[in-house]
Amino acid sequence: MFNKMLSKSEIKYIQSLFQKKFRDTENCYLAEGPKIVDEALTTPGITVKKIWALQEWVHRHQPMHPQVDMIPVAGFELEKISQLKTPNETVALIEKKDNENTGWHDAANLVLALDGIQDPGNLGTIIRTADWFGVPGIVCSSDCADVYNSKVVQSTMGSIFRIPVTYTDLPGWLAGQNNVPVYGAVLDGAPLHEKKSPANGILVIGNESKGIRPEVAAHLTHKITIGRIGSAESLNAAVAAGILLSYLR
Amino acid sequence: MFNKMLSKSEIKYIQSLFQKKFRDTENCYLAEGPKIVDEALTTPGITVKKIWALQEWVHRHQPMHPQVDMIPVAGFELEKISQLKTPNETVALIEKKDNENTGWHDAANLVLALDGIQDPGNLGTIIRTADWFGVPGIVCSSDCADVYNSKVVQSTMGSIFRIPVTYTDLPGWLAGQNNVPVYGAVLDGAPLHEKKSPANGILVIGNESKGIRPEVAAHLTHKITIGRIGSAESLNAAVAAGILLSYLR
Repeated sequence: MFNKMLSKSEIKYIQSLFQKKFRDTENCYLAEGPKIVDEALTTPGITVKKIWALQEWVHRHQPMHPQVDMIPVAGFELEKISQLKTPNETVALIEKKDNENTGWHDAANLVLALDGIQDPGNLGTIIRTADWFGVPGIVCSSDCADVYNSKVVQSTMGSIFRIPVTYTDLPGWLAGQNNVPVYGAVLDGAPLHEKKSPANGILVIGNESKGIRPEVAAHLTHKITIGRIGSAESLNAAVAAGILLSYLR
Repeated sequence: MFNKMLSKSEIKYIQSLFQKKFRDTENCYLAEGPKIVDEALTTPGITVKKIWALQEWVHRHQPMHPQVDMIPVAGFELEKISQLKTPNETVALIEKKDNENTGWHDAANLVLALDGIQDPGNLGTIIRTADWFGVPGIVCSSDCADVYNSKVVQSTMGSIFRIPVTYTDLPGWLAGQNNVPVYGAVLDGAPLHEKKSPANGILVIGNESKGIRPEVAAHLTHKITIGRIGSAESLNAAVAAGILLSYLR
């Protein structure tokens, strides 16, 4: 059907991006599957550097995006460059955005701060949830999962292209936010009863098992609690983020 | 250190339980890791038939639970019977509970109904969330993921031992629920504003990508919508369940 083949060095290059250190030095990352790659191609400000995809996919998409380098590959080649259990038509190489200089930190809006979210699926789902609720950006403690990890990218369902995520020393960053309400869920906080819609503020979500660290909790100005009726020991971090955002937005 | 070894047939038996059809015929399932196995041992009504665990784990736990058959295994043996990427000390064989005859269906409370939840992680997280909010039980459409699938069991974080889950023809079951309010999230429903706490009712959560099927939606008496401010196309099913439960409980 076609004669182009992926070279060993190209496969090796793509596979190197499975690791954070190479994503950092190359300043790019991978996204997979027709839905998320379509979204990358159509979201303003996202630079798709290259796409590897099944012949048929390339035929359908190349005419609409003539400026993007699309390489047709065979199914067995796609398997080598995919991180999914079941490779899904296409893999895109995407340039990281410069999230540091977007100015959204100071937006009069509710910003999310993540303290040690280490599960990639949780991080991705939190980004997707933040996107649903119109959060302008997310500040992560430096030990959060890498936002460009493939599991994070996939579980954002495309929200990664819209929500800027930065990494920082979280207690230090919070210390610099003066006169901004800082919300966080703790065991002994005020119960959530009705929607509040603060004009601006920061909502802190804590680690999956340890919650919000003391040095971060020290900066909370509004301690809240999601009332428990049953017996589960804790809520999933993304579920907790969704519930808190639904009350605060 | 010890001379007992897992026989090939025992390994084969355990591995057979990785599949639903053998879990069904054997009427039991597996749970892994010290936290969830501890919870199985201490939750009333849960029958732990056997435990395979590292020597040290057995030494610590056998005295407290003399009636449970605990088999010490070596690390390389644990790897063979584990479904985790990183095996975690212990694997337990647990008897399924008879969820059909618990009478919770008719409880004056809010029951959860799941329409085509197919991702095991989502199903497990929904069960955990339901447990947090004191939901007495969950009714699944027959095409939902199997609640005894290892990924579901692990992501319930122990809530599987407390929340009864049954499978049924969902539209047919809903048709038989007279005078019970049936809530469900749809695109054009009434916005969630404040907590309602209905004395009883059913909350329907739809499939991850397709939402609630028309034949199920036909039974909704209260259509609600989680207001979207941003651009994400949808919310994760478990996050949506958490938000809806927080308003309805």
